[in-house]
Amino acid sequence: MLAIGEKINVISRKIGLAMKEKDPEPIVKMAKAQVEAGANMLDINIGPGTKDGPGRMEWLVKTVQEVVDVPCSLDSLNPEAIEAGLKVHKGQALINSTNGEKERLDTFLPLAKQYDAKIIGLTMTKGIPRDAAERAAIAVDILTASMEHNVPVENIYLDPLVLPIKVAQNQAEEVFEAIKLFKQLNDPPFKTVVGLSNTSNGIVGETKSRIDRVYLAMLMAIGLDAAIMDPLDKELMNTLKTCDVFRGDILYAESYLD
Amino acid sequence: MLAIGEKINVISRKIGLAMKEKDPEPIVKMAKAQVEAGANMLDINIGPGTKDGPGRMEWLVKTVQEVVDVPCSLDSLNPEAIEAGLKVHKGQALINSTNGEKERLDTFLPLAKQYDAKIIGLTMTKGIPRDAAERAAIAVDILTASMEHNVPVENIYLDPLVLPIKVAQNQAEEVFEAIKLFKQLNDPPFKTVVGLSNTSNGIVGETKSRIDRVYLAMLMAIGLDAAIMDPLDKELMNTLKTCDVFRGDILYAESYLD
Repeated sequence: MLAIGEKINVISRKIGLAMKEKDPEPIVKMAKAQVEAGANMLDINIGPGTKDGPGRMEWLVKTVQEVVDVPCSLDSLNPEAIEAGLKVHKGQALINSTNGEKERLDTFLPLAKQYDAKIIGLTMTKGIPRDAAERAAIAVDILTASMEHNVPVENIYLDPLVLPIKVAQNQAEEVFEAIKLFKQLNDPPFKTVVGLSNTSNGIVGETKSRIDRVYLAMLMAIGLDAAIMDPLDKELMNTLKTCDVFRGDILYAESYLD
Repeated sequence: MLAIGEKINVISRKIGLAMKEKDPEPIVKMAKAQVEAGANMLDINIGPGTKDGPGRMEWLVKTVQEVVDVPCSLDSLNPEAIEAGLKVHKGQALINSTNGEKERLDTFLPLAKQYDAKIIGLTMTKGIPRDAAERAAIAVDILTASMEHNVPVENIYLDPLVLPIKVAQNQAEEVFEAIKLFKQLNDPPFKTVVGLSNTSNGIVGETKSRIDRVYLAMLMAIGLDAAIMDPLDKELMNTLKTCDVFRGDILYAESYLD
């Protein structure tokens, strides 16, 4: 299971300020903390990336990879920022910016091809997909586009779009169904990823944590491959490792959580 | 989701003694505690039931149903004890004693028919099934026998036999696969049940609890209908309720755990 740390994100006040001022300390600290907690990839989310996007992404990737030995997920709508990150990234990066819209696929898939990067395809277009079938239809468009651009399916992570349980409870099941459908679309199957914390959007404290970890376990049972998540939530990481034991991905031992 | 409380069990020293001495107090206390914690059925396990099995089961069912308004799962290898329980049981009981062996099916299925009871079919015979396919083959035998005895499939809960993760880690996945196979065997599909605590056999404390609750969430994601479990483990019950929210079985509200 790929645990992608979500904490280097422009929407955090502290991290956002550090990005703006190119102050490495908060970034380095957050990168180290997440990897120590078990993240094996770090998301770097600079948002739209309109203000000095390329410069920021380049600086962030360098700053992070100087202190931790994991690949990054480059998260921005600005393709120039993504490319600036890819140019300096060590190992195989993940491009986190694409949905089912043709113009985005035609922008980001060539970058995935050129830099041999993995790429997330969010199965939505302009609006929110209503059900699993709409998500699968968009996944087919992403599959078609990836073939046109010669990006191997093994490098694509389909994201079924997790919505807040608080406002869209029925979509939780649609996400389960979508992942099952995605797995049947191609052989070798697509990999799948979710933005896990979306499920508990607007919920706080222990209830938020419980909702995240129970949903993670349910998603892992039906074959989820990766999650963008909070690795600093200790019980969430313990849940992930326990699921890995039940899936046979790590061996059970008294010390399996260490 | 059917949460079957496991705590009225002869292997508990206190409860075992109360069964022997027909002392109602510990039984009543444990029945009430489990139902208050959210159990919607109570397992009554008297073991082999060779010593005064019928008398004990009859007394236990009466004692329990006098104080709580839930059906019971009657758990014994002694068919006379099961029938004694069925005779006094209010509502639809569950017979928890049958596996894939012909003699047991031919003993307990007629009781299920006669008393319109539900019945658990454990998908094992003399030995431990090696994989999901062996479990499914036994499930087919149970299906055939239930048709011979005119017991409707809706009244049968197939149990894929959960084994301790500590000694049989690879069987955890076989159980996932078995449940998926069971669901395809008939339309309407078989219901499924597990003895959840088996998974953490030999493990204690918070690790035991985590293993139980993570496995429960994973099993519920793939369609588990019922679990014999410890309802007094608060976080385990919270997990069950949270899964019910994600499956759309209860509505999300801030107070969904209350």
